[in-house]
This record gives sequence, structure tokens and C-alpha cells, in this order.
Amino acid sequence: MREGNIFIVSGPSGGGKTTLVERVLQDLNDLRFSVSCTTRKPRAGEVNGKDYIFVTENEFKKMIDEDKFAEYANVHGHMYGTPLAELESAAKSGVDLLLDIDVQGARQIRQRFSRGVYCFVLPSSFELLRARLLERGSENRGEIEKRLSEAGKEIEDIDNYDYIIINDELDRALESLVSVIISARCRKEKSIGIIKKGYSSK
Amino acid sequence: MREGNIFIVSGPSGGGKTTLVERVLQDLNDLRFSVSCTTRKPRAGEVNGKDYIFVTENEFKKMIDEDKFAEYANVHGHMYGTPLAELESAAKSGVDLLLDIDVQGARQIRQRFSRGVYCFVLPSSFELLRARLLERGSENRGEIEKRLSEAGKEIEDIDNYDYIIINDELDRALESLVSVIISARCRKEKSIGIIKKGYSSK
Repeated sequence: MREGNIFIVSGPSGGGKTTLVERVLQDLNDLRFSVSCTTRKPRAGEVNGKDYIFVTENEFKKMIDEDKFAEYANVHGHMYGTPLAELESAAKSGVDLLLDIDVQGARQIRQRFSRGVYCFVLPSSFELLRARLLERGSENRGEIEKRLSEAGKEIEDIDNYDYIIINDELDRALESLVSVIISARCRKEKSIGIIKKGYSSK
Repeated sequence: MREGNIFIVSGPSGGGKTTLVERVLQDLNDLRFSVSCTTRKPRAGEVNGKDYIFVTENEFKKMIDEDKFAEYANVHGHMYGTPLAELESAAKSGVDLLLDIDVQGARQIRQRFSRGVYCFVLPSSFELLRARLLERGSENRGEIEKRLSEAGKEIEDIDNYDYIIINDELDRALESLVSVIISARCRKEKSIGIIKKGYSSK
């Protein structure tokens, strides 16, 4: 069986990543979302086990000690981690997996697994990102400035990504990310087996 | 201005490449088709200057002598070549160019320009390819066997391609090839300029 792809999606807070990922998962029903563990509290509407696995700080620490994370990082003061089990079960079943993780986590996945398709999602300018954060209205002024300054640091990592998904219009960004996923499935390494089989008995 | 992409599409005769390329050009109106020169006679419906530039053997030889081809090859007893001018004008205007060329031509482009996105189009099995050729009915039995034997040789080149577009269903193949083209436009190297500009003044 072919090994599933791993799609890593990162991008600054307020860049529209979460909405984009939701839409991609609706469009491609053969793509599985990797559910992360986090120590932050659930937001309104978030479902335990679907959006995140919500755990205590102690539970998170225990998972670190037992080497149960493929990656983990402290983001905006909360811990986030991808359970190794998510990657292992996807690999076993040949399913494509999408990870919504920050740049620190992406760095760990890159080093540890030396595979994956890395996508960085963001609006095309700092002004647009600021406008999005203001629009969202879930952070106060000081918090927004903090997020923006963190975004500047995150963007320094963009050179380690394969694709840049410019998210100025959701539909356009959706088309881009879906195309990255479909094209990865067409890569020679992924389909050569089918062709070798289909043309072996000529 | 960003340099345009070059998409090279190859595949065995009867594999449905021409129809697929026509559909892709309809879907993506910002993609330009590279018109090849050929010494073969026009088929019914083919338009000079649109499908091919039809030239005599002598005209073709003269173009070779004057180094006016980016690549050329003898395919099924006729000469085919991509005018250098096609690549130069596309590069200058930043337009993405699609080349429908055979494996020999693709090899020349790869060596000479060291860039391009290489796609190999074919049905998933030898039996399907044979059925397509029989269905098309434009070749006699002997000609079909010759095409199939040539297909076997062409497929040996598949390892030099980046993507395999399996063309069992046209809509599926179309989605694949369009995705390859859109994703190439999202590659980091292509969009990093926009981001550097948009985030320079934070």
C-alpha cells in the first residue's frame, strides 16, 4: 500500500488558516485532520476530540515524558502537540493527513520524519493581517500587537516551506491548497507503482 | 516580474493527451499553449498557427541549422519542434507556457533549460491504451501495434517526469493537471517576492 502524504499547514494567527482548513476538509473527504492535544481552554463551539483533545498541563507533561508526541510547542502561552499515534495510524492505513501546526512544530516534523508537504498560509501583507485581527475582535489592542509581532517572527520561517498559500480571498486560497494536495497525490513517486503494474505485461 | 512556469506534457499516442491539453487551456485562460512546428500534414480540423505551424522538410531543416528550436524530434516519421521564440516571449511576459512534446523533446528541454514541470499523461494500463487506440480508429492494426511498441519505450522515460497524470477518466485527469499547474504557481520560490514586499514595512 502506498504511504499516505502528510500536509503541514502553518501560518500566523488571524491569517485565516482555521477556516481554510475546515473548507479543505469539506472538499476532500479522503483527507484526515490530525487532532492536536492542547492545554488551552475550549473556545465556544469547539468539540473535544474533533477540534482538539483538551488536556491538563499535567496530562500534557506526562505525554511528553512518555514520548507520545510527534511534535509539540508552546504557542501564545499554551501547549499544543500532535500525538504520534495520529501519524502512525494514518501511515498504516495509507490515508493523507493534514496537520495544522505552528512553525516550531513544523520544524520538529521536518527534522524527525524528513517528509511532508509544507504550506504556509497568510494574507499578502502585514496591513491585511492587522485588519483581519481587528475584524475578528477576539483580542484586545495589546494582544493584537503581540500577535503581529509574533507573526513577523513566524514569517522568518517561510523559507522552510514548499508552498505559500496567499489568503486574501478564501475561494482562491481554497483552490490553491486543494491543488497542492491533489498534485502531491500525482507526484511520480506516488503513482509509479500503478503504472509499473499496468504496463508490466505488454 | 516573475519568470513564467514551463509545463511539459508528454505521453504515448492514444493516451488522450491532446484532448486533455485542450480542456486545460479552456479552464486556465492565463496559460499559453506553445505551438510546435511540424512537417506532417494537417489533419481534419487542424488550424495552421494554432494547432501547429505546418512547414516543409526544407523549412524545418533550415530552422535546425539556424538554431531556432528549443527542442526537436522525429516522432512516428515526422519532425516536430518547439520554436525557441515561444519560450523566449513567454519568459519575457511572465506567462506560463504549456508544451505538448514527446519524451525526446522533453529530455532536450530538461538538459538545456534545467527548469520546467514535467507531466506524463497515460491511461493506467497497457490494455486501456490499446482499447483507446482501437476506439480512435485512425490507425490500422499494424500501425496500432507499432504505436503500442513505441509507447512501451516512451514509458521507460517516466522516471524523468515530476508528475504522472493517470487518464482513465477525462474529468479526473483534468483536475489532476490543473492542480499541478495551480500548485506550481504557489511554490515558495514563485510567491516569496509578494510576501517579502507585503511584510517589509512592519
